[in-house]
Amino acid sequence: MAFPRNKAAIVGLGVTEFSKNSGRSEMQLAVEAVAAALSDAGIEPGEVGGLCTFTMDNNSENEVFRNIGGKDLTFFSRINYGGGGACAPLLQAAMAVSSGVADVVVCYRAMNERSGQRFGSPTKSLPLPESELHLSAFTSLHGLQTGAAKLAIAMRRYMHETGATSENFADYAVAIRRHAATNPNAFFYGKPITRDDYLNSRMIADPFRLLDCCQESDGAVAVVVTSAERAASLRQKPVFIRAAAQGAPFGVMGLASYYKSDIVPRQECELVARQLYKMADLKPQDIQVAILYDHFGPAVLPALEGYGFCAKGEAKDFIKNGNIEIDGGLPVNTHGGQLGEAYIHGMNGIAEGVRQIRGVAVNQVECVENVLVTAGTGLPTSGLILGA
Amino acid sequence: MAFPRNKAAIVGLGVTEFSKNSGRSEMQLAVEAVAAALSDAGIEPGEVGGLCTFTMDNNSENEVFRNIGGKDLTFFSRINYGGGGACAPLLQAAMAVSSGVADVVVCYRAMNERSGQRFGSPTKSLPLPESELHLSAFTSLHGLQTGAAKLAIAMRRYMHETGATSENFADYAVAIRRHAATNPNAFFYGKPITRDDYLNSRMIADPFRLLDCCQESDGAVAVVVTSAERAASLRQKPVFIRAAAQGAPFGVMGLASYYKSDIVPRQECELVARQLYKMADLKPQDIQVAILYDHFGPAVLPALEGYGFCAKGEAKDFIKNGNIEIDGGLPVNTHGGQLGEAYIHGMNGIAEGVRQIRGVAVNQVECVENVLVTAGTGLPTSGLILGA
Repeated sequence: MAFPRNKAAIVGLGVTEFSKNSGRSEMQLAVEAVAAALSDAGIEPGEVGGLCTFTMDNNSENEVFRNIGGKDLTFFSRINYGGGGACAPLLQAAMAVSSGVADVVVCYRAMNERSGQRFGSPTKSLPLPESELHLSAFTSLHGLQTGAAKLAIAMRRYMHETGATSENFADYAVAIRRHAATNPNAFFYGKPITRDDYLNSRMIADPFRLLDCCQESDGAVAVVVTSAERAASLRQKPVFIRAAAQGAPFGVMGLASYYKSDIVPRQECELVARQLYKMADLKPQDIQVAILYDHFGPAVLPALEGYGFCAKGEAKDFIKNGNIEIDGGLPVNTHGGQLGEAYIHGMNGIAEGVRQIRGVAVNQVECVENVLVTAGTGLPTSGLILGA
Repeated sequence: MAFPRNKAAIVGLGVTEFSKNSGRSEMQLAVEAVAAALSDAGIEPGEVGGLCTFTMDNNSENEVFRNIGGKDLTFFSRINYGGGGACAPLLQAAMAVSSGVADVVVCYRAMNERSGQRFGSPTKSLPLPESELHLSAFTSLHGLQTGAAKLAIAMRRYMHETGATSENFADYAVAIRRHAATNPNAFFYGKPITRDDYLNSRMIADPFRLLDCCQESDGAVAVVVTSAERAASLRQKPVFIRAAAQGAPFGVMGLASYYKSDIVPRQECELVARQLYKMADLKPQDIQVAILYDHFGPAVLPALEGYGFCAKGEAKDFIKNGNIEIDGGLPVNTHGGQLGEAYIHGMNGIAEGVRQIRGVAVNQVECVENVLVTAGTGLPTSGLILGA
């Protein structure tokens, strides 16, 4: 039995503005994004059969369904691990559509993550399963109360092993903020940073500086998935789900996998990468654009290695040599990433993947056939290959 | 595209004791049940690829995985709506196995629901998505703070429409407690009730009496799912997943669907039933045993009608005529249901379905080919048809 490659496609995209204070409820944001995505697809709300989201999303599926004017909901599921789960609702949608469980599935994520619950807060205050809060007690005791503090230790290990320095992390931040600077929907539109801005920004949790940290954002993103057959007759160019996978190697714990033999956030990428390339029958060289989850910019370096774009320890040179620029060998986070555009738990990265395949991105790359989209690392994670 | 009928099978079952105070953590309960299910199947923990559970389960997938000694987790998902989602982890497992996303998927639910968080508590204290708590504000204002109080109104409507009375609800309670009385794993083993016991039990939320309400229980259940091919070479008789479906018609709200055109908890059953019978290519007459979710015993009446075992309003006579007895036309809740055995959010009902197909139930029905298992009603719900 095999993954239903190219059997499901993204046919609609809905994105709200990204801000620090949306001024409306998360439910309203969710419904706006879902309705916009359906409108973009030219599909009526009464046709929606499935709704998939994150366990951390505060908007109940049946309430979103009632508010959009749905009819019969026959599929609903949620994925744990915050941004680590980001690509998995699309795996759910692909399976549901190809299993005939629902003909149209909408994946959504809506959050007032700046004006409401801030995920940069201590872990114990976040809406997580109880057992994750228990584990957090072991790290909080030592002052590791936030995601930044926890993952910082793993990235220090990465620096030790590979020789990467703050200068290399600066290369990523400067490149990605340059992408955001030309994206009108990015919070940091028109606001590129210099290397000095980066190196002078204050330390949040060594080695993470302020300009390494993703934003805290309010906003929502939704995508509509249906069968390839149906997609062929819809108004938008179909964006095929070539592959979708999840991965949590033994010992991955919430940003604090300190009992793992290798604490660098790379093994979970390798596990997802192996599945994705096999499902899609593609190699890293076949990917034209990569949307790599940047909860913290430096985490993109081991992700580049884990997804096979360069060998272990070589991501710093890969970036320094300009590969991740719009005209580089592998343009990365062309929307400006979560450092520059917004932090919608990775769903805005999926939106950029859709735009790149459609050919309508602000920083459009030429001749895009395949886009890799990834999710939060240092966690059980997920990934997608989208294709034209 | 069609549901992967009979492509996946339950091959292992793990069940802890059911009590009012397990004396150990929910994590320990989960791991005991998962380990027991794997042992029952003869499958090593290192082969587990997927873990599916409820959003309300407090045990993180990656922690359960670490504690059983897993290797690479490639599929994880959760279903919202408490007992309404009960059968959906099996839908997830069937899709994952048939999509090649994971070869072995374990579905689990563990809870200290009596000694810990009691679901009979006011809704506002339960771990639900924020938007459900917001809705609850509308009903709490009028004193409808608990599940019993909310669903009671819908069941009063059912009584008004069908002429069902407390005497009919007594028929269900007495029959099901008789089933529990011969089940050594049931909390009410050896404790049948009389009609007078029922009619004299105190009113909790009219029309629900104490003996209409499911128990509050501590315990855990896990089932192992793999492909039909693999199942053929394993030690247990395979229990095929003939069909699995979810359903939430427009307007279903958490036990309080008062804006719905029909507030009786039946339409959601009809939506799931239509899908299940079509997926399995079966009719109600092909079902030998039905495990019907009894959060409140009277809710079984509209479920019998919604799943097509009798016409609207005729469930009271169907039960009175002895159909739901072990030797009746359609034995129901042969384990004693959640009134008599335990309340493990419907997962113990799935366990009984497995035993009936295997032919090893305490109250074994003869010649069982197909078992229907359902989930909580008055909510977005789900159902399963298991087969030999």
